[in-house]
Parts: sequence; C-alpha cells; structure tokens
Amino acid sequence: MFNFTATNHSQTSKARLGKLSTPHGTIETPAFIFCATKAAIKGMTPQSMRQENTQIILANTYHLMLQPGPEIVKQMGGLHGFMGWDGPMLTDSGGFQIFSLGHGSVTEEIKRTRHSARPKSLLKINEEGAIFKSYINGKRYTLTPEKSIQVQQALGADFIVVLDECTPFHVDKSYTEQSMHLSHRWAQRSLQEFQKGQSGVQALYGITQGGVYPDLRKISADFVNNLPFFGHAVGGSLGANKTQMAEVVEMAMEPLDPSRPVHLLGVGGVSDIFYGVLQGIDTFDCVHPTRLARHGGALVTPRVWESMTEDPKRREHMNLRNARFREDPRPIDETCKCQTCKNFSRAYIHHLLKARELLALNLLTIHNVHFMNRLLAAIRQAISLNQLEEEKKKWIP
Amino acid sequence: MFNFTATNHSQTSKARLGKLSTPHGTIETPAFIFCATKAAIKGMTPQSMRQENTQIILANTYHLMLQPGPEIVKQMGGLHGFMGWDGPMLTDSGGFQIFSLGHGSVTEEIKRTRHSARPKSLLKINEEGAIFKSYINGKRYTLTPEKSIQVQQALGADFIVVLDECTPFHVDKSYTEQSMHLSHRWAQRSLQEFQKGQSGVQALYGITQGGVYPDLRKISADFVNNLPFFGHAVGGSLGANKTQMAEVVEMAMEPLDPSRPVHLLGVGGVSDIFYGVLQGIDTFDCVHPTRLARHGGALVTPRVWESMTEDPKRREHMNLRNARFREDPRPIDETCKCQTCKNFSRAYIHHLLKARELLALNLLTIHNVHFMNRLLAAIRQAISLNQLEEEKKKWIP
Repeated sequence: MFNFTATNHSQTSKARLGKLSTPHGTIETPAFIFCATKAAIKGMTPQSMRQENTQIILANTYHLMLQPGPEIVKQMGGLHGFMGWDGPMLTDSGGFQIFSLGHGSVTEEIKRTRHSARPKSLLKINEEGAIFKSYINGKRYTLTPEKSIQVQQALGADFIVVLDECTPFHVDKSYTEQSMHLSHRWAQRSLQEFQKGQSGVQALYGITQGGVYPDLRKISADFVNNLPFFGHAVGGSLGANKTQMAEVVEMAMEPLDPSRPVHLLGVGGVSDIFYGVLQGIDTFDCVHPTRLARHGGALVTPRVWESMTEDPKRREHMNLRNARFREDPRPIDETCKCQTCKNFSRAYIHHLLKARELLALNLLTIHNVHFMNRLLAAIRQAISLNQLEEEKKKWIP
Repeated sequence: MFNFTATNHSQTSKARLGKLSTPHGTIETPAFIFCATKAAIKGMTPQSMRQENTQIILANTYHLMLQPGPEIVKQMGGLHGFMGWDGPMLTDSGGFQIFSLGHGSVTEEIKRTRHSARPKSLLKINEEGAIFKSYINGKRYTLTPEKSIQVQQALGADFIVVLDECTPFHVDKSYTEQSMHLSHRWAQRSLQEFQKGQSGVQALYGITQGGVYPDLRKISADFVNNLPFFGHAVGGSLGANKTQMAEVVEMAMEPLDPSRPVHLLGVGGVSDIFYGVLQGIDTFDCVHPTRLARHGGALVTPRVWESMTEDPKRREHMNLRNARFREDPRPIDETCKCQTCKNFSRAYIHHLLKARELLALNLLTIHNVHFMNRLLAAIRQAISLNQLEEEKKKWIP
C-alpha cells in the first residue's frame, strides 16, 4: 500500500520529483504538509483544504494524546474518520512538544521564534522515556517510544514517526552524541513496537540525528539507512541561523538512502523550502502559513510587491492590517485562484481584521494554504523542466 | 424592481406565504434574515451561506458607519461588492445600537438578555437626531434621519429602514407617546431624504411604534399605512416577557396595511418565529442563531432530544460542550443536510470546543444557519398545506 518513487531531473541539483503512495491516495512530491495540530486546521474544513489543492496534513500526537485521548479518536474511526479528512496524513511522535515545552528553548532555537514564557513541563528524561506534565490539567504522563507508537497506531495516520530526544542547540558535541545514541535506541524500540502491531496501513519514518556535527550526521544516517524504515525525517538541531541550517541539511541529506522519502521537520519559509528541495527534501511541514494567517499575514510573491505604488520593504508576506490596504479594491494577488482572491478585496480583509471579525482568519488561511500548494506545484513543474533556479526568482523577494 | 405578493392559505390564522422581489433576487417568505453585523457573517463565507440555503442577510449601519465608513463601502461597490454577497440585503438605521448602548437597557428589555456592562455612549437626543460617542475611538457623531438614509444609500442594501427612537420599556405611556411622535417626524424626514436620492434600487421600510399601548399602536399603524413605505417593521418595545410580546405583536399587526411586507425586528427564537408567522409576519432577524453557535450551542428539534439515552432538560438547542457528547459518533442531527452534519460527529465538535479550536465556531454556525433556513422552509410548506399547528409541534420542545 505504501510506495515511493523519485526521479532527479537535474544535473546541477539534488532536487527530485516523486510519487508517495499511501492507503489514502498518492502525494506528488515535493509537497507541503499542513498542521492540523489538534485534528483541525484552524479555520478551514477538510472540504475547503481539498478545494485549495491540499494533498496531505498532519496532526500532533502530543496534543491528541492529552485531549481527547487516543481511545476516543480510535473509536471515532481514527483521525480520518474523526476529523473528516480522507487524504494522506502524518502524525509526529509527540516528542517535539514535550521537549520544547520542557527545555523551554528548543522551539526557539530550531525555529528561531521569540522567547516562550510557558512553564517548563518536562519532569524527567531517562533511558525509558520522558515524564511530563499535561499542559491542560497538570496530570503526569510518561511517553516512551513504545507508547508513542501505540498512540500513533490508535490515531491511525498513514505516516508515523519514531520518538526521539529533541536536543537543544546550546549543548556541546558530547551531549549531542549521547542524545543521538539515546534516540537511536528509542528508534529501535519504536521500530520493534511498530512491527508488532504492523497491519500494513501505516508506514514508519526514522529520524536522523547528529546536530551540527558532520561525523555524527554520518553515523546517524548510516544507522537509519540500516533499519527498515519507510522514510526518513531530518531531525535534531539545524543550527542557529539560516546559513547554518542550509549546511546542516546538506550534511544530513548527503549520506541518506536515496530510495526513501525524506521529510524536513518544522520548516516552511519559502526560501527554506527552495533550499530544501535543492537538497532533495521531499516533504515539509510548518505551522507558519496557517499561523501567519491568524496574525493578518498573506503569503505573496515578489510580483505582487511590484504592483504596489509605494515601495515597502519586500517580504515573503504582506500584512493586511496595514493602512495602505484600506481602500485597495484588488485581491491579495490578482493571479491567485484561491476562494479568497476570487471573491474578496484587500480593503475588505483589512476591514475584517480591524473589526476583529473571525472571517478574516478564515479568508487568510484559505489564501495561505492555496499559496503553499501553488508554490509546491510550481516547484514540481520547475523540477520537471529543470528550471528550479529561474522559478526561485519568482518566489523569493 | 421591488414587489411583494402574499397569500393567506389559512382560515384560522393570519400566516401567509409571500414572494418578496428585489434587484438581487426574490425571497420566499416567511424568511429569516441573518446578521452580518460588520459586513461579515462571523465565521461563514457568502458562498457557504448560499450553500446552506440562505436567502437574505443584513448588516448594521451603526457599525459600518464607524468602520470602515460608508465612503469606503460605496467605493468598493456597496455592501454587495465589498463583502461578496450577491443576494438580497437589508441595513437597519443605526438607531438601535446607539439607543441600546446609550440607555444601557433597551437591548436587555427588548431582547431580555443579561445586563450589559458597556459604557453608555448616547450623549444627547433632540428633535434633530442623536449625538453619540464612537465605541471604537470615542469620536462624536451625529445621526439624523437624513444622515441615516445617506449612509444606507452609500451602503447600498436592497432594503433600508427609517431612523426611530428605540424607547425603553420602563418609560410611561406619556414618554412612549412623545417618543412615537418624534419617531413619526423622523420617519417623514427619512422618507423625504430617501425620495430625493431615489434611483429604484432600494426600498424603504417604515417602523410602527407605540410600545405596549393598543391605542398608540393603532395611531402608529395608521401613520405608516398612509406614507408610501415599501414595507413595515414592527418596532418599539415589545414588552417585558414572551406573553406580552405576543400581545404587542398582535396589536401592532392588526391595523397594518396587509399589502406590504412586515419585518419583526430582533426576534429569532423558534417559538417566537412560529408566533410571529401566525400573526402574519413575513421576515425576522436576530443574532441568536450565529451567536449561539459561538457559545457552543446547536439548534435542534425535539426529535433529536428523543434520540438521547438520558433525558436532559429539553431546549431549542443542545450545548455541545456537554460531556455527554464526548464519545457520541452521531452528527448533531441525523436528518440535517448541512455541511457540518454531513461530515462531522458530536464527539468531534465537542473536542474542538474543549480544545478551543476556531473550526468549532465555523461548524456550529453552518449548522445553525442551515437549521433556521430549514425551519423557515418547513414553515412555508406548512402554510401552503394549512398545517402550521401540526408543524409547530415538530419544532418546539
């Protein structure tokens, strides 16, 4: 039921075009995976996700384990039945949230977001697994590699992921190495647990570790290559900035088995996606497009900035709260075919944001989801024509 | 472009079936008008409103006058172009919000909702009009009958309404009578202003006043009957409770010209709608169905309660936050054909509400909009079959 084939059409890059088959349909890669964290895209129905050409979404094991709990999701037909999405899905292991809430700095470092003021919830980490407090009611939970797989089996996504320790960036090489070996032992236990319950309706991804260290990245790639994972995810610290991320992704990708699909965890900026694709990454996920929408931001191409009479600082998105849109009758992007751009003006969305109307978030989410799917479709076409470098210029300001 | 025809199919009630034509299409009456207060249904696009069989919506002049302002709406093609709704629309005069925020008690009395803690914003009311402070920035505005019509002409809804003073319930007959005469003078000025700018694309509703006093209701009905209004709205205080509301609606309706459509302002409970229909009311509006959705409530018929294993207190809605829905795989209503009931379970909506997911509000709004349109369609069919009393039993717990 699961299959992956990929072809490299370029002599100058590792970019590849692929087909990733699951029991819920085939994904054309490179593809973007949208975050339906608590089994819901914030402000969009599965029907409208499909209408905007979405291929695959993910849900977070950490959140669903705590609420409503895996038993209820399973009883309701798994995630597909529970949330009414009939396409391919992925769940993560639950580890990222535990460690990022726990260390209080992993998210910030990996994703370079602002400082989080949330209380640390990780109580203990040992060979067995991680003990943490629920963010909902303070109840203690233990997440082991086996437990993560069991929960993900109950949730029933097509792709599931091994539990790993998300090592923070500020630790030294010795900590990174120990952490990598712990994650490797957890990966083996995850795989064992997965194989026990194996019914062919789910496929397991291993995660490569090794932080910013080339020799560790090589060791970890060899490790995952030698276990029967269906695919690989690039995990561990990707460094402190975009330049280092590019280096780390390159060193992580180089030794990986090219016959397996590779997912880059938590990366979703337009330029980052182009970089990843050029390194052979097949799938990406990030909360960025949908979160940005909830803050009034619409993803746009440089061509949209060119049509502006003023010459503002060009970015990968425009902020519709800006007063310059108050009387602007144009859609966000005149070439965009999303339901928002087909029906609504910048002035209207600006008004909705100023008036704190719920609909603003719905409309911007629709646009950003469509934008990401359009971006990845353009990337796939450019790969097939061997024109990725030219295409990149159309998307990055 | 505007036309109204109605037929009474019953010997025992004043209920009537009508066709209300506008430049944006014909409405089958009795009909419910949904509140898109700030030119947006909270959490639904115009496309999904249509999908759930919506015929007509309204927007509030008070809110739009302050933000984004009538000039911008006009510039963007009027409300229809601005918000992307191509069906019939109504705007109110703006008076209700000024007076209810001002007196601080009109809303509570007319609608019997809980006490509002909002600051009073009405500064002064005199022959000329009302002076009030903007709820957004404290700026002073004057709303006169002429200004209300001008703003409504810029907004461009099909049906517009004269400015009246919304008299609170606790005032005596003498105040009610004075207030009625002031509203009558304002109605004449509104009509004069309307006729100046008349281009045939809008139709004006007059409002009958007179509070709870039969003789005043008669005087006010004679007054509006004798002016060339297209339709009438039942305004003024409807009394302190449901029983009194029924009496007041009856005494207000009796002397009104039967050839004109009649709108009942701000009434949207299921039993109130049946009562209004039996008195010959053609259209209703209320924030109730969409507001209830945002509080986790789904409108249901008594038949839905019958399918529950427990025997909870039966009401016109069920609260999906209730723990009894935690593992309930059924849709809100198995006979409902809305996009929510076709695709999602009570357990899923319960989860979304507990998890504070935006999508919960979207899904419940869809259901409640569909419910109201289904209710009014059932009422129309029952009128044509002269079975309104039997139909009523299917809808009121």
